[in-house]
Amino acid sequence: MKRHEIIALLDGDHERHGNKVGLAIDTLIVLSAISIALETEPSLPAALRTWLRGFEIFVLAVFSLEYIVRVWASPKPLRYIFSIWGVIDLMSILPAIAFLNPHWQALRALRLVRLLKLFRTSRSLERLATALGNVRGELMVFGAIWALMLYVGAVGIFLFEHDAQPEAFSSIMTSLWWAVASFTTVGYGDMVPITTGGRIFTTLVLFIGLGIIAVPAAIVTTALLEAAPGPRRHPDAPHPKPDETNNGE
Amino acid sequence: MKRHEIIALLDGDHERHGNKVGLAIDTLIVLSAISIALETEPSLPAALRTWLRGFEIFVLAVFSLEYIVRVWASPKPLRYIFSIWGVIDLMSILPAIAFLNPHWQALRALRLVRLLKLFRTSRSLERLATALGNVRGELMVFGAIWALMLYVGAVGIFLFEHDAQPEAFSSIMTSLWWAVASFTTVGYGDMVPITTGGRIFTTLVLFIGLGIIAVPAAIVTTALLEAAPGPRRHPDAPHPKPDETNNGE
Amino acid sequence: MKRHEIIALLDGDHERHGNKVGLAIDTLIVLSAISIALETEPSLPAALRTWLRGFEIFVLAVFSLEYIVRVWASPKPLRYIFSIWGVIDLMSILPAIAFLNPHWQALRALRLVRLLKLFRTSRSLERLATALGNVRGELMVFGAIWALMLYVGAVGIFLFEHDAQPEAFSSIMTSLWWAVASFTTVGYGDMVPITTGGRIFTTLVLFIGLGIIAVPAAIVTTALLEAAPGPRRHPDAPHPKPDETNNGE
Amino acid sequence: MKRHEIIALLDGDHERHGNKVGLAIDTLIVLSAISIALETEPSLPAALRTWLRGFEIFVLAVFSLEYIVRVWASPKPLRYIFSIWGVIDLMSILPAIAFLNPHWQALRALRLVRLLKLFRTSRSLERLATALGNVRGELMVFGAIWALMLYVGAVGIFLFEHDAQPEAFSSIMTSLWWAVASFTTVGYGDMVPITTGGRIFTTLVLFIGLGIIAVPAAIVTTALLEAAPGPRRHPDAPHPKPDETNNGE
Repeated sequence: MKRHEIIALLDGDHERHGNKVGLAIDTLIVLSAISIALETEPSLPAALRTWLRGFEIFVLAVFSLEYIVRVWASPKPLRYIFSIWGVIDLMSILPAIAFLNPHWQALRALRLVRLLKLFRTSRSLERLATALGNVRGELMVFGAIWALMLYVGAVGIFLFEHDAQPEAFSSIMTSLWWAVASFTTVGYGDMVPITTGGRIFTTLVLFIGLGIIAVPAAIVTTALLEAAPGPRRHPDAPHPKPDETNNGE
Repeated sequence: MKRHEIIALLDGDHERHGNKVGLAIDTLIVLSAISIALETEPSLPAALRTWLRGFEIFVLAVFSLEYIVRVWASPKPLRYIFSIWGVIDLMSILPAIAFLNPHWQALRALRLVRLLKLFRTSRSLERLATALGNVRGELMVFGAIWALMLYVGAVGIFLFEHDAQPEAFSSIMTSLWWAVASFTTVGYGDMVPITTGGRIFTTLVLFIGLGIIAVPAAIVTTALLEAAPGPRRHPDAPHPKPDETNNGE
Repeated sequence: MKRHEIIALLDGDHERHGNKVGLAIDTLIVLSAISIALETEPSLPAALRTWLRGFEIFVLAVFSLEYIVRVWASPKPLRYIFSIWGVIDLMSILPAIAFLNPHWQALRALRLVRLLKLFRTSRSLERLATALGNVRGELMVFGAIWALMLYVGAVGIFLFEHDAQPEAFSSIMTSLWWAVASFTTVGYGDMVPITTGGRIFTTLVLFIGLGIIAVPAAIVTTALLEAAPGPRRHPDAPHPKPDETNNGE
Repeated sequence: MKRHEIIALLDGDHERHGNKVGLAIDTLIVLSAISIALETEPSLPAALRTWLRGFEIFVLAVFSLEYIVRVWASPKPLRYIFSIWGVIDLMSILPAIAFLNPHWQALRALRLVRLLKLFRTSRSLERLATALGNVRGELMVFGAIWALMLYVGAVGIFLFEHDAQPEAFSSIMTSLWWAVASFTTVGYGDMVPITTGGRIFTTLVLFIGLGIIAVPAAIVTTALLEAAPGPRRHPDAPHPKPDETNNGE
């Protein structure tokens, strides 16, 4: 088997073995992510914890092997090592050091970097990046308007509620959290205006704000649908019948 | 009356008696669903409970009769019995066993299967399935992005909040519940970040996440409107006058 | 002044005095609505309460006068009296009986009917009714799907949470309230799933449900924008310059 | 350097020095806004508080200088002084009086006016105003429908919940706050219906209301996207290639 075939195999676009290896690596990444989440469970039985540790060592071994094979098979090893994917592959196996030296536990957080490897074999990240890049300017304008609205909302509610609830609305910084929870309509309920002035202010800024806040979501939606693989038909476009499409005339 | 006429009658597309029988069966299904909900009411008077039990027996009798008639009237009884609708019809009457033998109470849950019978006489399920089938690929991509975002949100908030609120944010699995409640903007308020870091993280992931989360909803909406029976006119399309539509040329 | 001119004056489409009278009546309706809301305020000073009572008598007098004038000026008084607007006008002044006989306090609730009078001088109600009428069929289908989803959500969460929280999720009827608060993303936080099964179920039904729930809103929005007075330009339509519009060619 | 060049410099459209000065002023405004928010933090160390006070004096000095230069450089000083931007510039530096005379602390709130200066060097405010101006009529109609729906919701929930929760739903005015939190789907959870009647009423008004409430957001989104600088391409429009755009036929 030639080197470029090995690369194709790992990247999941080998002509004969298709994306079997790529799919296996992706499955391993997802299982690793689930394992990371399970580890933090305080009520986890000791047996399962030992099993998860064994699985983590297995994952580290597989990704280390993948890294070594990629370096060896690469026509220009240094170029791969210092490429984005090379760095991501390396960071994915650095947590191994935490197993050898307990002082390096912080490195275990790097395991999350593995999630990025999911995007190598798909074109989703590329497409998402393209889509967001196309509307970068508009998103920045509305991001600024969003920030301004949050700020004005926070200052306003602080002025109205600080005297009535000095604990909850202790500062404008704290009030910003109220503004985030309200303008996104999440509404956790941990900070709620109780004065009449604060409630009227909330009604007004929400009525103005929710309309403006819907815009960035609409922009992202439009951009992502535009960047979708096939051209999407529009509801009012004449529905082409299969036999009528793309015939010359 | 011929056998195929009886089937047509039960299916609600008999040419003379229209969908009278079908409508009656649908009404019975809805009443049965309301009855199932009422049964769980702890404060229900005993008299009404007896009445509901009697109604349930009546419903079982009607659906048993329907099943027998359908088997008898079907040109190929075995084919009907093992078809999807045959199995659903059978499961709808299995709870009858729970009345004969108290050890089989669990079978009563099968009564919910009756709701599926609602879709036999309408084309809604078909249309919904077609619509979702058309955008299956896109929904899977965004479903994956959704899952990834929930995961990253849960891990992030766990890192920020675990030390401050070890009870609430006890593990990444628990933090996932916070992520679901926040990204859907439901915001129950049972888990709320209180650290400055956690709040800034929430602001950022919500701003990024809400835009992306709006996409699957937009996809489903578009797909369902496309799959609607008549072609929907678009706001800016020239409004055709009734007499101008569908004239030949 | 002729009778038909008086009618035109009251309806707000008199050719000389324009909609001055109509505007005055609308203002009186809005003030009456605010007065009704203020009346319920427990901390209201007695002086203001007396003033509001006086204002209510004034409103009743004006609307009684309006009713009498309309009956007198109408070319066919009986036809007006039994028309929709005639009944609404009569119901608006019936609360006067509550002032004469304290046993008829319940009639005071009829004052809210006055709000409907707001729609006489505008075409908003008409347009709203037309818009909703156009999409009646689609709204009913999605209303049914909405109801079905609420029901399935309520039954599911009841099965998962009833044993863990018998107080909160006491019956399927109570669980329906949770389903309403969750699927609308309001999320009051008075009923929150705490079991792992209930939370996973919530995640799944919310992911499926929110996409479907967005459809009726989209249908109403489209219908209302379609029924708007002027034809709305679409974002991608070529922007006509003022001087280029409507010139013949 | 000529006077009109100084104006261009301050406005950020000088032909050689570009928008360097404008960007510096904008940065100063944003830093001033952050400083205002930080000041209210109760746990702020005294050293940082002194530093913020110094920064505020610096900002006041810069904006005072800017105001003096603008008056001096303006071809018609009086016209500038009484223009909107002249008044905003003056109000931005009035808080200086609060430093000289502690009795004028209230003037410090005027510092927020500085945020408006952000819009001088951009065309965002102009575009936002144009966009909202275009749909002013529609927004007013839906604003009125929104207000009417809030009012009807508040009256209804008051009738259902007042007897069960006289503390929470004490008056229609208080119930309006519930209506705002519910119709915007924020759902703080401080006021929650507990009666069966109130919950059924909530379900109905939310189903009706959320569809109508989505309309103003859709109107604002459409208007803002229409008023965007470049014409936005639509998903189904044929994608123009860069070299084909804007060449003369």
